[in-house]
Amino acid sequence: MQKLTFEISMSLDGFVAGPNQTPEQPLGEGGEALHEWVFPLAAFREAHGLPGGETNADSDRLAETLAGTGALVMGRRMFSGGEGPWENDPNADGWWGDNPPFRAPVFVLTHHAREPLPKRGGTTFTFVTDGLEAALEQARAAAGDKDVAVGGGASVAQQYLGAGLLDEVLIHVVPVLLGDGVRLFDALDPRTVELQQTQVIESPSGVAHIAYRVVK
Amino acid sequence: MQKLTFEISMSLDGFVAGPNQTPEQPLGEGGEALHEWVFPLAAFREAHGLPGGETNADSDRLAETLAGTGALVMGRRMFSGGEGPWENDPNADGWWGDNPPFRAPVFVLTHHAREPLPKRGGTTFTFVTDGLEAALEQARAAAGDKDVAVGGGASVAQQYLGAGLLDEVLIHVVPVLLGDGVRLFDALDPRTVELQQTQVIESPSGVAHIAYRVVK
Repeated sequence: MQKLTFEISMSLDGFVAGPNQTPEQPLGEGGEALHEWVFPLAAFREAHGLPGGETNADSDRLAETLAGTGALVMGRRMFSGGEGPWENDPNADGWWGDNPPFRAPVFVLTHHAREPLPKRGGTTFTFVTDGLEAALEQARAAAGDKDVAVGGGASVAQQYLGAGLLDEVLIHVVPVLLGDGVRLFDALDPRTVELQQTQVIESPSGVAHIAYRVVK
Repeated sequence: MQKLTFEISMSLDGFVAGPNQTPEQPLGEGGEALHEWVFPLAAFREAHGLPGGETNADSDRLAETLAGTGALVMGRRMFSGGEGPWENDPNADGWWGDNPPFRAPVFVLTHHAREPLPKRGGTTFTFVTDGLEAALEQARAAAGDKDVAVGGGASVAQQYLGAGLLDEVLIHVVPVLLGDGVRLFDALDPRTVELQQTQVIESPSGVAHIAYRVVK
């Protein structure tokens, strides 16, 4: 069955980005530390058009996720590079460059209609103005037999989780404290969400992967 | 070498107690859910003077921790049962009953001097008014060859972590969202703390144990 999945790196104190996000620093102050574990992986480098990298269990898992993902849904801030006055710029080209790492169609939730934005490597950004479920429906159709992933950010992931549409959540708990920034879970009614832990993996990259099934 | 350790159950959204703590509900609303995994364990039941229970890897680990802990340091709220007007009651008897589960001397950080309070089972509560390091020093002396544990709460644990006195932190990540309450990490300058993940354990109880070494 086609699933809706979401994975993200979270600091031990619950943040998925640091404070003071800017176009130059879309992960906020200190936020890069959340992703340092993934940068050296061969599968990450390959998705970004780079050679080499580490081949290990983390890289294999990432390659498997990328191969199993047929389409993504994404918030407008994730498309445009963080929160700020530029996020609704009708001419924004995103911050993913000409060859985005997704290798799949991406459906961007926005209030501003615009033409699809084709990129290299299999990604076309399609802008959806009629809500969560419409974006998901388009992504499901585009994904074929594969799964759909929520590409972030935290706000959109919480909306899908709160709406009961998410099937699986994978959290990479990174051994760092950020102290401030964007929290992963702060805009949900927690009573609407039931999670069941399905797997815990000690990573060769020094983080903890915890997989949850969303109980419907 | 004698270590200072701290372990605690934390919700996936970073809380160690729910909101609205009262003497009747010292873990706050929903906070019991953080500890449900530990209640059935044979080692937990034994420490609380109860027979039976589940013997599994979690119970073994808990038994090992209890056996390796020679003394504890604890905040006054942890002694008296949460935050509230009763926390400085000079006659408070704590909420741990006549036969506390610690099986070791407990040093309570407080601003109110009082006589030591002996209980059954190896626990005497000793009240320390001259600060973190003094309490730790007394606990180290009482622990002999064994380790000292921070018995909580979050505030005292953060003080020991921020002061560079903590050696090991073990977080039990519980698959529950509380949405509000007492956060484990919110009163620290995160730049003063460096953690290194040392072990990740998938628990038979459906939680994730993540162990960290504090880098000095």
